[in-house]
Amino acid sequence: MKLFRLDNSIRTEGSVSRRLADAVEQQWLAQHPHGTVIRRDLGLEPLPPLWPATVAGSFLPPEAERTPEQLAGARLAAELLDELQSADAYLFAVPIYNWGIPQHLKQWIDLIHTDPRTRAPDGTLLAGRPAVVVEARGGGYAPGTPREGWDHVTPYLTRIFGDLWGLELSFARAELTLADVNPAMHHLRDLAAQQLTAAEAVATAHGAQLAQRLLASA
Amino acid sequence: MKLFRLDNSIRTEGSVSRRLADAVEQQWLAQHPHGTVIRRDLGLEPLPPLWPATVAGSFLPPEAERTPEQLAGARLAAELLDELQSADAYLFAVPIYNWGIPQHLKQWIDLIHTDPRTRAPDGTLLAGRPAVVVEARGGGYAPGTPREGWDHVTPYLTRIFGDLWGLELSFARAELTLADVNPAMHHLRDLAAQQLTAAEAVATAHGAQLAQRLLASA
Repeated sequence: MKLFRLDNSIRTEGSVSRRLADAVEQQWLAQHPHGTVIRRDLGLEPLPPLWPATVAGSFLPPEAERTPEQLAGARLAAELLDELQSADAYLFAVPIYNWGIPQHLKQWIDLIHTDPRTRAPDGTLLAGRPAVVVEARGGGYAPGTPREGWDHVTPYLTRIFGDLWGLELSFARAELTLADVNPAMHHLRDLAAQQLTAAEAVATAHGAQLAQRLLASA
Repeated sequence: MKLFRLDNSIRTEGSVSRRLADAVEQQWLAQHPHGTVIRRDLGLEPLPPLWPATVAGSFLPPEAERTPEQLAGARLAAELLDELQSADAYLFAVPIYNWGIPQHLKQWIDLIHTDPRTRAPDGTLLAGRPAVVVEARGGGYAPGTPREGWDHVTPYLTRIFGDLWGLELSFARAELTLADVNPAMHHLRDLAAQQLTAAEAVATAHGAQLAQRLLASA
């Protein structure tokens, strides 16, 4: 059994998305003690900037000569997709940066999508496999707050991971995660701590479910 | 008078977003023959990958020593924001890549947002200044098509450029722009050509409006 874990936080110390992902991973490992966790950390090790060249290469006719950069990009895209397809379950740890997708995660999605296998029909690439997405949001997005509707990450990840790749997604979210480091949010520290505890409980439950659904389908 | 133009396409030959942006720019220049066009091309010259270090530096107390990378990132962020704030009108040329924001554009937004001036109240950073966004979409997103609702770029740009920065936005869009290079879309070539002609007419009209609104407020 293999769990693919993708981290995206640019910090390690104090990263809420990593902490929530740890809770999911622990549950999965508890039920799959001999399982393998495939780790890729885009926050600490972003991909090389090969995407533009890889796109250019992907539009060339098969017999055309390619530049070393185009070849390297196509190889890396194939490796990333092989890695992704080799797993049975998925864990994506995603902080929201400036109300949008982490730049390093978009780079990863873009590069993977240069591989011809991603042109499979909607919902078939990773059809029906289970995934947990843990999200860390620096501010608050609850209904009635000034930032309601400003989360532009969840809709996009639901589109790509769910509608397009076919993963079955569960989300666990913590908000106000910048309360510890942003002086203007210090009055929200207690609320942030409560939300983190609640989010960890959700992540733990999702982690157990992630492992059980695999057992059920094995 | 200054027009800030931001290009994001990773191609030059055949780029639809560049072509539409040219139509806007020509209109603006026709009415401001002595105006200045400030150009930044993220598609051809992406920013250096300084953002993670810049974020780390931005959370340090003012008196703390910073690494050369943290200092360079903060300097570049300030330059980008100075450049942005120096303009009277805006032109953003944005291709949709994998149903989401161009990775290079997210890098630019992220880096700019490390500058403390971006913590101004919503809608005030560039309050009320006019902007045209030209979008190139590789496929079709019309109501009733399989990809209706898959445009995750317009909502995000409306949020950041409009709600957050305060720009008054007009959009011009071309669809099916990959019909020329994707063999599976060759039957859509005629429709794509029609849409491009229509989009250029909209871009031209928006360009004239962009210039006139400046004249009116000058």
